[in-house]
Amino acid sequence: MHQILEMIENKEYKKLHQKLQTMKPADIAEILHNLSDKNFLLVFRLLPKDFAIEVFSSMDSNEQAKLSKLINIDELRELVKELNFDDKIDFLEEIPAQLVKRILQNCQEQERTLINQFLNYPEYSAGSLMTIEFVDLKKEMTVKEAIDHIRKTGFKKETIYTCYVIDAFRKLEGIISLKDIILADKNKKIKDLMEKDFISITTTEDQEEIAEIFKKYDLLAVPVVDLENRLVGIITVDDIIDVIEEENTEDFHKMAALQPTEKEYINSEVFSLVKQRLPWLAILMISATFTGSIIEKFESVLSKVTALTVFMPMLMGTGGNAGSQSSTLVIRSIALGEVECEDILKILWKEFRVSLLVGVSLAIVNFARIFFIENYSILIALAVSITLFITIILAEMIGGALPILAKLLRLDPAIMASPVLTTILDTLVLVTYFSISKIILNI
Amino acid sequence: MHQILEMIENKEYKKLHQKLQTMKPADIAEILHNLSDKNFLLVFRLLPKDFAIEVFSSMDSNEQAKLSKLINIDELRELVKELNFDDKIDFLEEIPAQLVKRILQNCQEQERTLINQFLNYPEYSAGSLMTIEFVDLKKEMTVKEAIDHIRKTGFKKETIYTCYVIDAFRKLEGIISLKDIILADKNKKIKDLMEKDFISITTTEDQEEIAEIFKKYDLLAVPVVDLENRLVGIITVDDIIDVIEEENTEDFHKMAALQPTEKEYINSEVFSLVKQRLPWLAILMISATFTGSIIEKFESVLSKVTALTVFMPMLMGTGGNAGSQSSTLVIRSIALGEVECEDILKILWKEFRVSLLVGVSLAIVNFARIFFIENYSILIALAVSITLFITIILAEMIGGALPILAKLLRLDPAIMASPVLTTILDTLVLVTYFSISKIILNI
Repeated sequence: MHQILEMIENKEYKKLHQKLQTMKPADIAEILHNLSDKNFLLVFRLLPKDFAIEVFSSMDSNEQAKLSKLINIDELRELVKELNFDDKIDFLEEIPAQLVKRILQNCQEQERTLINQFLNYPEYSAGSLMTIEFVDLKKEMTVKEAIDHIRKTGFKKETIYTCYVIDAFRKLEGIISLKDIILADKNKKIKDLMEKDFISITTTEDQEEIAEIFKKYDLLAVPVVDLENRLVGIITVDDIIDVIEEENTEDFHKMAALQPTEKEYINSEVFSLVKQRLPWLAILMISATFTGSIIEKFESVLSKVTALTVFMPMLMGTGGNAGSQSSTLVIRSIALGEVECEDILKILWKEFRVSLLVGVSLAIVNFARIFFIENYSILIALAVSITLFITIILAEMIGGALPILAKLLRLDPAIMASPVLTTILDTLVLVTYFSISKIILNI
Repeated sequence: MHQILEMIENKEYKKLHQKLQTMKPADIAEILHNLSDKNFLLVFRLLPKDFAIEVFSSMDSNEQAKLSKLINIDELRELVKELNFDDKIDFLEEIPAQLVKRILQNCQEQERTLINQFLNYPEYSAGSLMTIEFVDLKKEMTVKEAIDHIRKTGFKKETIYTCYVIDAFRKLEGIISLKDIILADKNKKIKDLMEKDFISITTTEDQEEIAEIFKKYDLLAVPVVDLENRLVGIITVDDIIDVIEEENTEDFHKMAALQPTEKEYINSEVFSLVKQRLPWLAILMISATFTGSIIEKFESVLSKVTALTVFMPMLMGTGGNAGSQSSTLVIRSIALGEVECEDILKILWKEFRVSLLVGVSLAIVNFARIFFIENYSILIALAVSITLFITIILAEMIGGALPILAKLLRLDPAIMASPVLTTILDTLVLVTYFSISKIILNI
C-alpha cells in the first residue's frame, strides 16, 4: 500500500505498472478501495485489460459503482462486455436503470434479452445468483468426446469441475464431475457414468435454502432448472460463501434491532444509518411506557421503602442478560438447522432446569452481597434475591421459547433477540419485584 | 423419515436396505440423528460398507461418538480405516484418548505416527483442518504425464482440481488447477503452466484467518506448508464453510455473554449449559452494583421527586438498545474486514452525526408523550428528554468505539456487545439523569 502510494507520488508509472502485474486481483481491489478518486482511476488505467477485468470482478459493489462514474461510457461498455456472466448481472443489478440501458445499447439483441431476463429474477433468489457459463454434455458422448468438448468450450466457463448432461430440449438428465470423467475409461459412455439422482434447484429458490443445500451435501456447484426441468444456470460455491456471510450479517443486525441493509457500515450515509436504527428504537422506547406505568402503580411501595429502587437496574439488567443468552442459543440453533419447532417442549424443559441452577447460584451470591456486605435488612435481601431467582427462570424460559414461537408464526426468530425480549422482561421483572416486596416487607 | 420408521416397525429389512441405497448419505445421517439407539444401529448395519463410510463422514461429531459406543471395536477400526484422512482426524480428535489408542492398535507404525502428529496440531489451526490426500506433480512432467499421474493416483484424493508441484525435497514450487491442465496443449510442461506466485499458509495459521483468505481470493483449496516450505497438506473449501459457520456462532455467543462452546445447544447437558452462562451473568450482576450505589447517592433527589423513578427503565433500555445497534454494526464490520482500527475517528464522527439525529427525534417524541399525553410537569418532561438525548449520543459513540478499542487491546471485539456495554451505559445514564434532574428541577 505504502509502496504503491510512493510510486504514484513520484510518478513512477512504469514501475507501478510492472508492480501491479505481480499482484493478485483481490489485493489490488483492496488497495483501490483506499485511494482517492484521482489515484483510483490512475491505478485502474495502468492495469492491462484482461487483468483490469479480474480486478473489477474482485471489487465490491460500492467500488464498482464509484469506478463506473469515473470512466466514460465506452470504457465501461468494454469492461462489462468481458465480465463473467454472473459478475455482469451482479454489477448491472446495482447501478441505475438508466446506466444499464446505455451500457446495453450496443449489445446484440439476443444477449440483451438474456440479461434483462436475469435482471428480472427476484433478489436473493437462485435466478439472481446463477451463471450461464457451465459445461453441457450429451449422454451419448464417450469420455474421450466429453474431454474434447470440455477442452474446446471450457475456457470461459465458471467451472468445468461439474458438467451437466442435457437432452435436445435442454432438459437436465444427469450430472458428472470432471473427476469421474478423468478417472474413467476413455471409451465409456457418459450416460453410464453420470449421476442421475442429483440435486437441483429452481430459479425462485431462496438463497438461504440454497446455502443450506451446499452445506449439507458439501457441493462445489448446483444446477438451476426451470419449471420444465430445463437447465438454465448453475450456482458455484464461491458465491454461496458470500450468501452465508450476508445471511449471518442479517441475523446479527436483526438481533440488535437494526433494519437489515446490504450496505457496508463504513460507506453508509448518515441518513441511511438513521433510517436503519430509528424505527426499532422508537418502537422499543414507546413499549417501555409499560414499565413506567407499573412503577407509577407501585409508587406507594417505592416511597415507603426507597431502598428498593437501588436494586431495580441490577434486576432488570440480569433478566435481560439471562434472556439474551437463552434466546441467542435458540436463535442460532434454528439458523443452523439444529433445532426444529417440535423441539419446543424439550427446550422449555432444558431451560427450566438450567434456570433453576443459575437462579439459585445467583440468588445466593446476591443475598450474601446485600445482607452481609451492604448491610441492608434481611427482608430486603430476601425480596431482591427471590425476585432475582424468579427473574432468571422467566428470562430463560421466555428467551428459549420466543424464537420458536416466532418461527411457528413464520416470523424471523432473530427479531426475538435481546431488545424485544428485554422490553418484555422489564415489565415482568418489575411486577414480580414489587409484588414480592409488598408481601415480604408487609407494605 | 416416516417411511423408514414404518419399514423398521414392520421388519421389512430388505425393502429398507434397498430404499437406503437410493438416498444421499447426508439425508441418511439426518434420519439416524432422530432414531433411537437400537434403530440407529439397525439402520446403520443395513448400509453397504462403502456407503456406511460416507454416511459416517456426513454425521456430526455427537452422532459419530454415539455410534462408536454402539458398535464393537473391530467394526469401528474397520470404519475408521476407510475414512478420508481429514475426516479420520476430525473423528479421532473428538473421542476419548483411550479409545483412539485402541483404534490405532493394529495400525501400521508409519500411519500411527502420522495420525498422532496431526492430532497434536492445535485445535482451530491449519494443521487440524488439513488433509494429506492431494495430488502432487513434478515440474518436469508434461501435461500428458500429469494427466496420467492424476488418473493413476486420483481416486482417494480429497480434490484433484488443484494440483501441487513439489521438488524432490517436497518443497512446494507451484500450483496448477486441473482446468489449466485439461485446457492446455498435451506436450507443454507443467513448469510453464503452473502458478508460481501462489498463496500458501503454515500449519499454525488460525482458522479464522484461513477463512478470510478463502473469501478474499475465491479459492477451492489452499496448500499448507511447514516452516521449510515443504508441502504437508491442503485445506478444501467444504471444510472452510464449516469454519465460517463456527466462527459466526462463536461471535453470536460472545455477543450474548456466553462462553463459547462447540457443542450443539440441543444436545448439551444441563450442567454444561449452566457453565456456559453463569460466569458472565455473575460478573455482570456484580458490576451492576455500580448503578445501585449511584441510586443510593442520589436517593434524596428520588425521594423528593418520586416521578423520576418512572422513567429510569425507559432511559436505561433505550440507551442499551442504541448502544447495541452501533456496537453490533461495528463488531460485524470488523469481522467482515470492512473496518480497521485506524477507522476509529471516522466511526466516531459518523456515530456522532447519527446520534444527533436519532437523539433529537426520540427526545421530541418522548417530550410530547410525557408532557402532552401523560401530563407530567414541563420540567420533568424536559429533564427526561434531555437525558434521553445525551443517552443516545453516549450510547452510540461508546458502542461504536468500544469494539475498536477491544481490537486495539487484542481482545475479541465481540465481547463488547450488548451485555457489557449495557452495564457501562446504565451507570452513565443514571448519573446523567440525576445530575440533569437536579439542575432543571432545582432540587
